[in-house]
Amino acid sequence: MSVFTKIINGEIPSYKIAENDKFFAFLDIFPVAKGHVLVIPKEEIDKVFDLSDELLSEILLFARPIAKAIESVIPCKRVGLSVIGLEVPHAHLHLVPLNNISDMDFTKKLKLSDEELKEIQEKILKAL
Amino acid sequence: MSVFTKIINGEIPSYKIAENDKFFAFLDIFPVAKGHVLVIPKEEIDKVFDLSDELLSEILLFARPIAKAIESVIPCKRVGLSVIGLEVPHAHLHLVPLNNISDMDFTKKLKLSDEELKEIQEKILKAL
Repeated sequence: MSVFTKIINGEIPSYKIAENDKFFAFLDIFPVAKGHVLVIPKEEIDKVFDLSDELLSEILLFARPIAKAIESVIPCKRVGLSVIGLEVPHAHLHLVPLNNISDMDFTKKLKLSDEELKEIQEKILKAL
Repeated sequence: MSVFTKIINGEIPSYKIAENDKFFAFLDIFPVAKGHVLVIPKEEIDKVFDLSDELLSEILLFARPIAKAIESVIPCKRVGLSVIGLEVPHAHLHLVPLNNISDMDFTKKLKLSDEELKEIQEKILKAL
């Protein structure tokens, strides 16, 4: 079972942002920028392009209101998205507020306190 | 008119990979890795999350066979995807063959010759 499935099941706590029957979204606790959110299918599939037609066509529609909420409360030029997937074998879409191209550099992670993460979660939830 | 619209219209030449009524795919000539492809909606929309529901739900379905073709002919662990959009105001999805997280670093570009780009285009087209 992937660490993300444990998060969906509530076995590992998370800063949850949104959920429906197919997808789950939560704050990345190793963010590249404040407001960095992960969107995952509930089904544990490693590679994003191995998602079913249905999931692949719905994941960006599910992500859109979250991206709009991030963009409205986090100072940024726009919200970028990325799927890399070399670390956790459970497809995950990164939503990252961007000011510079280097903000999408996944080799540099921020360290945020629980209080900072909680505050970001609350801001995004209010805007959703 | 964006540089990408000029590419779609054939006013600027490109290493075309695929096209349907809504989307167009071609090699990024400033690639971060060999096999780096751009997928764009034909409609000139700046931000990816401003695409219509229809385009947003179809873009990854259009990209999938291209990603699978890249993965089959370019040595890589998987094909990642990214939308940043700070440079050209016409939404574009990057498909990038990945071996390391740092392969998704858009601040580092490769310089490939026309011959190298042509060869990569032909390889991907054969696998499509």
